[in-house]
Amino acid sequence: MIRIGICGYGNLGKAIESEITKSSDLELVAIFTRRDPNSLKIASNTVVENISNVQNWKDKIAVMIMCGGSSTDLPKQVPEMAKLFNTVDSFDTHAKIPEYFDIVDKIAKENHHVSTISVGWDPGMFSVMRLYANTILPNGSTYTFWGKGVSQGHSDAIRRIPGVKDARQYTIPVESAVERVRNGETPNFTTREKHTRECFVVLEDGADKERIEHEIKTMPNYFADYDTTVHFITEEELKREHSSLPHGGFVIHSGKTSNGNKHVIEYSLKLDSNPEFTGSVLIAVARATYKMSNEGLVGAKTIFDIPPIYLSNIAPQDLRKNLL
Amino acid sequence: MIRIGICGYGNLGKAIESEITKSSDLELVAIFTRRDPNSLKIASNTVVENISNVQNWKDKIAVMIMCGGSSTDLPKQVPEMAKLFNTVDSFDTHAKIPEYFDIVDKIAKENHHVSTISVGWDPGMFSVMRLYANTILPNGSTYTFWGKGVSQGHSDAIRRIPGVKDARQYTIPVESAVERVRNGETPNFTTREKHTRECFVVLEDGADKERIEHEIKTMPNYFADYDTTVHFITEEELKREHSSLPHGGFVIHSGKTSNGNKHVIEYSLKLDSNPEFTGSVLIAVARATYKMSNEGLVGAKTIFDIPPIYLSNIAPQDLRKNLL
Repeated sequence: MIRIGICGYGNLGKAIESEITKSSDLELVAIFTRRDPNSLKIASNTVVENISNVQNWKDKIAVMIMCGGSSTDLPKQVPEMAKLFNTVDSFDTHAKIPEYFDIVDKIAKENHHVSTISVGWDPGMFSVMRLYANTILPNGSTYTFWGKGVSQGHSDAIRRIPGVKDARQYTIPVESAVERVRNGETPNFTTREKHTRECFVVLEDGADKERIEHEIKTMPNYFADYDTTVHFITEEELKREHSSLPHGGFVIHSGKTSNGNKHVIEYSLKLDSNPEFTGSVLIAVARATYKMSNEGLVGAKTIFDIPPIYLSNIAPQDLRKNLL
Repeated sequence: MIRIGICGYGNLGKAIESEITKSSDLELVAIFTRRDPNSLKIASNTVVENISNVQNWKDKIAVMIMCGGSSTDLPKQVPEMAKLFNTVDSFDTHAKIPEYFDIVDKIAKENHHVSTISVGWDPGMFSVMRLYANTILPNGSTYTFWGKGVSQGHSDAIRRIPGVKDARQYTIPVESAVERVRNGETPNFTTREKHTRECFVVLEDGADKERIEHEIKTMPNYFADYDTTVHFITEEELKREHSSLPHGGFVIHSGKTSNGNKHVIEYSLKLDSNPEFTGSVLIAVARATYKMSNEGLVGAKTIFDIPPIYLSNIAPQDLRKNLL
């Protein structure tokens, strides 16, 4: 059994706690939290520990799955945890990945651990699809579309506007843009041409609708470059209609070989629950991380470095027989 | 430069000869044929050798890409070539892969070579998609649909009927079946419910249409279990409308996580030229095979064993920056 720890008990930590029971080779041994362990109601019978006691678990956990957020938690926690354990995380701030990789790589190497960073679906499965496609058809263009799905970051941005009580934001790919790429065209899209944004907003009593709608639609980085629709709804409707966290998207690569022959590769995900799918990826990667560490590898790794067979707990000969 | 040989100069060998020029780290050094080398008109300036002289190239070729057919060529040639070189092949008789793997594995190990077997798109990219999907969502069902595309095996089967001058057979996925799976249903399809077959047949002078149509539609294994349509056309029309070799298909996996949340993963290929795409996969795998051999690995490998990053000739930090 591979002994697994979960660090952080939000949506992702909860999903992993639940999904890990499907893997007969993995054993969840502890959940670590910054909160008072006694205050945490968890779904399983796992031990809950305050994160300050993590040092005591150094030889009792093979892989720590890091479930904090990318903005502040992971950049701080992963370099610390990589001193004690092999780790897996879903760091998803694309622009900062190179710098983050170097920091984690150095610490993991010094401490003879493997730290697999930035896994989930994007970065993660979408990344490896971009790699396969670009490598097979180097003369081509890759497009990534996200949605339809809930963007937590954009929902949070709306919630920070004074007068907003709650909000949910959906990122929606522009159907006609997806179709053009799917048909082998290689257009240069503007941001606006690829995705639209739809917002469902609950107001505080007496808040100014027009001001808030204007603030959302003109918010730089988040909404200003998109065609954005704002709907004001009641708190009850938000809870009833918008409480799940679906997501998904498409990676489409179109490339050419000799004589102008065209080829289109498409990978798509349609997910009812973003955290449960992301958690499922992290669990498989935890297994692969353990195997890489057992082989004597050290340092930061990504999904690019993982032989796909390492993700599975099924015997290689059975995989070749049934899936090859 | 990684020195590459091509063994076999049919559609696949020709495609590799042409596509390999896109890789600045690969050098095509020789093409091997069973024919008289002087009779072979090739597209490049590469040396052409009779296969009987291959022994002389033992230390001059890093990876031999095997381009023969799966029914008789590869099972005979690959075990011989694995004594002399690292090899890559597209052996695609799914039922015989386990036995083939064991034979090649033994010889490659004895001779300290890596032989990557059964790559292309199915087996190959479709296989690794089935593996990723089943590993991430073990509680789920995977469906593979092929087409619309030309099946060489089925075209050949029609050509063997007396009275048939030439033929082309298209495998076509049943749209409504694909849609059901794409929507997360997990039906048990019969063979007939997944694919239809469409045949374009050129008759010899005076041949009996009705008998031939009946023979096609009732041919066991190839057509009897399918809804098959037969069109009789002229030789000119066959050349004009059906001379290219398009293919493609879909791998769709739908799985569940906690609380019944559903997730659908889909990978699809739409290929203008089956041999050019297959050749492009084999080229990337030849690079990975060279790297695995350089690392000291030996034996038979499949796409399951290859860290995706090994397929690329781009620096790892650039891949992480641009594709992760």
